[in-house]
Amino acid sequence: MPQTLTERLGIALPITLAPMAGEASKAPFVAAVSNAGGLGVLGGGYLAPAALRAMIRDIRALTDKPFGVNLFIYDNPTSTDAAALAHYTTALAPWYAEAGLPAPAVPTRLGESQQEQMQVLLEENIAFFSFTFGCPDADMLARFREKGIFMAGTATTVHEARDLETRGVDAIVAQGAEAGGHRGTYLTDDFAQALTGNFALIPQIADAVSIPVIAAGGIADRRGVRAAFALGADAVSVGTAFLTTTESPVSAAYKQVLLSQPDTRLTRVFSGRPARGIPNRFMDGMSKFESSTPPYPVAHVLTQPLRGHGRQNGKTEYQSLWSGQAAGLNRAWSVAELVQELAAGLSR
Amino acid sequence: MPQTLTERLGIALPITLAPMAGEASKAPFVAAVSNAGGLGVLGGGYLAPAALRAMIRDIRALTDKPFGVNLFIYDNPTSTDAAALAHYTTALAPWYAEAGLPAPAVPTRLGESQQEQMQVLLEENIAFFSFTFGCPDADMLARFREKGIFMAGTATTVHEARDLETRGVDAIVAQGAEAGGHRGTYLTDDFAQALTGNFALIPQIADAVSIPVIAAGGIADRRGVRAAFALGADAVSVGTAFLTTTESPVSAAYKQVLLSQPDTRLTRVFSGRPARGIPNRFMDGMSKFESSTPPYPVAHVLTQPLRGHGRQNGKTEYQSLWSGQAAGLNRAWSVAELVQELAAGLSR
Repeated sequence: MPQTLTERLGIALPITLAPMAGEASKAPFVAAVSNAGGLGVLGGGYLAPAALRAMIRDIRALTDKPFGVNLFIYDNPTSTDAAALAHYTTALAPWYAEAGLPAPAVPTRLGESQQEQMQVLLEENIAFFSFTFGCPDADMLARFREKGIFMAGTATTVHEARDLETRGVDAIVAQGAEAGGHRGTYLTDDFAQALTGNFALIPQIADAVSIPVIAAGGIADRRGVRAAFALGADAVSVGTAFLTTTESPVSAAYKQVLLSQPDTRLTRVFSGRPARGIPNRFMDGMSKFESSTPPYPVAHVLTQPLRGHGRQNGKTEYQSLWSGQAAGLNRAWSVAELVQELAAGLSR
Repeated sequence: MPQTLTERLGIALPITLAPMAGEASKAPFVAAVSNAGGLGVLGGGYLAPAALRAMIRDIRALTDKPFGVNLFIYDNPTSTDAAALAHYTTALAPWYAEAGLPAPAVPTRLGESQQEQMQVLLEENIAFFSFTFGCPDADMLARFREKGIFMAGTATTVHEARDLETRGVDAIVAQGAEAGGHRGTYLTDDFAQALTGNFALIPQIADAVSIPVIAAGGIADRRGVRAAFALGADAVSVGTAFLTTTESPVSAAYKQVLLSQPDTRLTRVFSGRPARGIPNRFMDGMSKFESSTPPYPVAHVLTQPLRGHGRQNGKTEYQSLWSGQAAGLNRAWSVAELVQELAAGLSR
């Protein structure tokens, strides 16, 4: 009899925190989900190796329960269209001027070393490693497997789920079109065609693979948990619903927007990759760059100072207000209360 | 104690056939769903009043159970961009030439009279009237109400669901982004923002209105039915899954495409309104017209001869192969077998 996902991970509830890199990637928040019986997952993609290591140790100091880390695994663009880059950078300039920031400079460095980040995870011997935008190579996966670290890959299509299973991951995170933040799509450039709602995605992935499926996107209360399990999921990944908890480190201004029953939209203008968020002045104003924004992570690095300024000064018009489509179900309460609500969907 | 939807309609199972106008709108198919214990719903939007009346009488001859009819309710465009129309018509010409059809002419007549279609439904006193793309005016709704005809409006957003409830409909069809065929969106021009997956749409609509919710989109087997009810639905609307049944009147070629686990995409190029279907040569070839296709129903009428030719000759490259995102779950079996599978999701 094979172990279930909860048995293998040693967690009480098959409820995981969706990794949210950036503002929400803070140790007390992640630890709170693990302490409530779920699995806290740190969005570690934007953290330098040393900061990532420190964060993992901070989480470990706050909980004796298992937790996980998610990283972005991708190839940097080999070349960037210089004209498009100049055009986009010029368009950013007035936003930077308005915010009193120095004009954005074309980045000399693109993101953190993924090899070094993964090395940290191996050395720190975390319980759960999930990844988005791609999959580590076979040698690296073997090193995680040797350590007994549970590996979960993010799929937005049946094709990606089959690919990840073939590569040897332990579970599939099925990211429905409802999900907030970046789309994990990596085997096609046609992001629109990979926007499958969870009603269609979960059962088709569950039928296609024999490993556990963790459903992500649009799950905010007991109803969503019940539905995900009915469709064939073995666990859920919940992000947006946790953002308005007491323990969530995001700004009061962002929480207020999330609690206003917002609509969401997909956009590339913040980072160069399609991501779902709540429309604001920046997203609307830059919308003519939807198809010409420089590739990830070039645009991500270019908008970083502006987004940081917005975050620090409660100016949501400059922030990437990532949100899933079920934000209208969000409530202001504690992590433990939300986990209890979600867990109510597990009983039959 | 208010009557449930099944009690009010006098049907055994809260399972409805999603209306599919065109090739699938045939009496034996609709009657088969009612005879199996669900509610057959005819997609009547493209039928002239006399043909609609004949079809209703044909269904009545084939079943003594209740059934429904769906109509498209919309305003014809007041003006059409002449340059865009000429551009699109010119682009169609090679397709018509290739198929051996006379060149497409700018239509002199746009669709059927909706007033006359509704007059037929009133006179024939059908059990269930659903509508898409909008809502009949208050006077017309009052006439259906006086007759005791159950009225269901199609919503793709919480805003539309609230609007329809305020107008006095009896139930909301919540059309998730997964659904095949035309999007029902009518209160915004921003179709992309109204593409909400059912995980997020059903519970938010169920919370927002006090009338029954019929979930549509991505429901293909018992798992989908269980999930829809878990999220707060009172009934389901299933379309694509019925298209490959023995009783389905669509061509063998179309059925074969549906059974090949196809991807789907939204397109405006067939009709002028966004609709979800399986990419084919026409959809791909005309994709540069996504934003400049003339409005519905102008483009719909312009492509009608080509689509008809494809249908009659098994040339799927000319057809609008409407399909929801769960087509990968389709099976070749009977209407009764599919209804039995779906009904298995109703038991706890």
